[in-house]
Amino acid sequence: MANQYLHNVQGLFDTIAPNYDRMNNIISLGTHRHWRKQTMAQIHLAPDAHVLDLCCGTGDWTIALARELQPTGEVIGLDFSAPMLKLAQQKVAQQHVADRVWLRRGNAMHLPFKDNTFDLVTIGFGLRNLPDKAQALAEIYRVLKPGARLVCLETSQPDQPLIKPVWQWYFTKVVPLFGRLFAHQYQEYSYLQETTRHFASYQQLAQMFRTAGFQNVHYQRFNFGAAAAHFGTKEAD
Amino acid sequence: MANQYLHNVQGLFDTIAPNYDRMNNIISLGTHRHWRKQTMAQIHLAPDAHVLDLCCGTGDWTIALARELQPTGEVIGLDFSAPMLKLAQQKVAQQHVADRVWLRRGNAMHLPFKDNTFDLVTIGFGLRNLPDKAQALAEIYRVLKPGARLVCLETSQPDQPLIKPVWQWYFTKVVPLFGRLFAHQYQEYSYLQETTRHFASYQQLAQMFRTAGFQNVHYQRFNFGAAAAHFGTKEAD
Repeated sequence: MANQYLHNVQGLFDTIAPNYDRMNNIISLGTHRHWRKQTMAQIHLAPDAHVLDLCCGTGDWTIALARELQPTGEVIGLDFSAPMLKLAQQKVAQQHVADRVWLRRGNAMHLPFKDNTFDLVTIGFGLRNLPDKAQALAEIYRVLKPGARLVCLETSQPDQPLIKPVWQWYFTKVVPLFGRLFAHQYQEYSYLQETTRHFASYQQLAQMFRTAGFQNVHYQRFNFGAAAAHFGTKEAD
Repeated sequence: MANQYLHNVQGLFDTIAPNYDRMNNIISLGTHRHWRKQTMAQIHLAPDAHVLDLCCGTGDWTIALARELQPTGEVIGLDFSAPMLKLAQQKVAQQHVADRVWLRRGNAMHLPFKDNTFDLVTIGFGLRNLPDKAQALAEIYRVLKPGARLVCLETSQPDQPLIKPVWQWYFTKVVPLFGRLFAHQYQEYSYLQETTRHFASYQQLAQMFRTAGFQNVHYQRFNFGAAAAHFGTKEAD
């Protein structure tokens, strides 16, 4: 069941890969870069850090992280869609960070890495599409070094009475239309807006972090809550 | 000490990367492809196998392995030299196996992978340059699935009385000269021939496999023993 779901979602992301960057700019009205930038400002990376960027897609966050590192550091970008990774590889080469970025296809719920490996794990707009979020959080916790952090940037839901209906209208009506207009992919973007609307609230996500064992859990909301960055730390030794 | 050694060897491989493919053809008098082909003939891969190719260099063996797989399988190519991996990435794209090959910089003596992960580990002309071979073999054993195989292709030493002096002359005198003539890298190739001459005999290497826990250890020699493929199996569950 979970496997079938994963397989379908993988096919969806394979399909939307060619338009993915453009559509993210359109759907977020250009603000997703700003969210990432604000999130990055709270991450302090050693130049030789080992970073894992999950659900890396076409590699925007992967590359932004790599720019903070020396070649002695590394960012592993993991995604389950080979077409996404192919686009990511091209961008990595263009941006001259191929000496510190390593891409790999894989399943975020079964990470192919050793325990206590990474100084930072990031996941951007990926968690809500994983069928078993608790399992993914447990795996992330496992591969983080003690004392190291998970940073999750994800769509979320506004809760202000005036904002919420506008946001709902935007995601149920406008986003699928954008998908049809700009990418001829109405169905795919209908699905994506559904996962956005039904994903955990920012309080629920913080609780999921705590349940997985993360400490010092906090978050930052963007655009009246349309997106949120969640931070959690693995228990130090 | 071992770290300093590794650092120097890494610098050496970074230096020789641009001429590496050409020099291997010259030094082995074109036979290294033949050795690999004969070794491959003894490997039976499932199309969805997970393969780790250690010390993958510019990726020739990585790509040959990937050609045996469907996109549901994967070959991870690991090397400690970023310039080598950069060349490998170009070849992987040219050969249309980028959907199943994932390159990564790393240390073969501290593999960044989980236990019991791979259906096959290969290491071609790499083991003799690792400062701690026993540690590398232990790590390979750890990441192999129970019942899965290590295949090591490496230079070796002929032991026939008529062949051995010719081989010694070739490696001590001719190979560094080739390095000077074709790559302006006399010193680097002097080092490489030294590691070739001083590396374990095929019997010693088989014994090292057994010490690391491998079962059903056997080998095949090429060119009167100038190279050898060693095979070993991790104990089945």
